[in-house]
Amino acid sequence: MEKRKRQPVVTRRRILEVAGEEFSKSGYAASGLGGIVETAGLTKGALFHHFADKRSLGLAWVNEVVADGIRGRWVEPMAELGSLDGLKAFCRVRLTEMTANDELAGLVLMAAEMGSVDAVMAAGLEEVFEIWRGGFAELLERGKLAGWIHRSIQPAVEAPFFVSMICGFSVGMRLPSADATRRMGLMALDGYLETLRAV
Amino acid sequence: MEKRKRQPVVTRRRILEVAGEEFSKSGYAASGLGGIVETAGLTKGALFHHFADKRSLGLAWVNEVVADGIRGRWVEPMAELGSLDGLKAFCRVRLTEMTANDELAGLVLMAAEMGSVDAVMAAGLEEVFEIWRGGFAELLERGKLAGWIHRSIQPAVEAPFFVSMICGFSVGMRLPSADATRRMGLMALDGYLETLRAV
Repeated sequence: MEKRKRQPVVTRRRILEVAGEEFSKSGYAASGLGGIVETAGLTKGALFHHFADKRSLGLAWVNEVVADGIRGRWVEPMAELGSLDGLKAFCRVRLTEMTANDELAGLVLMAAEMGSVDAVMAAGLEEVFEIWRGGFAELLERGKLAGWIHRSIQPAVEAPFFVSMICGFSVGMRLPSADATRRMGLMALDGYLETLRAV
Repeated sequence: MEKRKRQPVVTRRRILEVAGEEFSKSGYAASGLGGIVETAGLTKGALFHHFADKRSLGLAWVNEVVADGIRGRWVEPMAELGSLDGLKAFCRVRLTEMTANDELAGLVLMAAEMGSVDAVMAAGLEEVFEIWRGGFAELLERGKLAGWIHRSIQPAVEAPFFVSMICGFSVGMRLPSADATRRMGLMALDGYLETLRAV
């Protein structure tokens, strides 16, 4: 009984994982359900048991997988940081590990593709970005209170700037100059974060 | 004779214009040649006279239209700037006029969609970004010589950072929070540019 209950959850997760890889690599419009079920080793019937259509699959990927990814990779670790040097080291790690086809690249591509085309998708994407911005803003608030972020810093201003900047770097990971962009980006990001320091 | 010679040039330009609007709005993968010729009021035959396929059309759009746009909207005006306050005012104008479906949004979307999928397209996109980065780097070099950019600033580091940041803002223009992102972005960009000032 336990096993029979769990199988659909595993299948659903497997579909989302394969679909996410495909969305992140080729984009939403260029991703076909046929290729997704083939890679997942499933039938279209199994996919339609979990998702009504490609749009439902795209929405679930954004609302569940990507939202969890942003929480896990950005928001939760940021909640543990207690110094500007810690924040700088953390950002360095995130920027260093970025790749052309990772989940963040997929999020940015989905936002660029669907943000102004599909209002429901846009709302889901917005929520993910808001979780991310919120995590950074909260960190800055906390840093101000603790005295390691300068008191003149406005978290609500810096947060969308920070998130935009990281998204811009992610687009850069898809270009031939990715390595140079990363190298220069690491230095420039360090310089930017230094401007937040309490003096 | 003159008129007969010019007509194909006009038609070609019209196709590129309509295709660019479609790429910028819906993305490359979601754009169909059928819709493009219909909007342009042409036949598919007329399109194929100028472009072998959608890819040729996409490449020509990037290499000609978008490259010219980046030169005209960013590089050439930046070559006229002679102070940090001038640079700040210029960036303010560019960020204020950004829209969800403008050519810049189209460039970023094309880079996100095709940058890691098609090497020839990636090379064309890279060239456009390099023109843009080069324009900003040159401005900073000039500002250092003239004494209004701080001598510690490394143009080769700041240029990819600046371009990434603007690209990230452009993605934000496609989301429901576009107005807030723009408003906060204007303040944060101003703050960033201030860090370049010679003291």
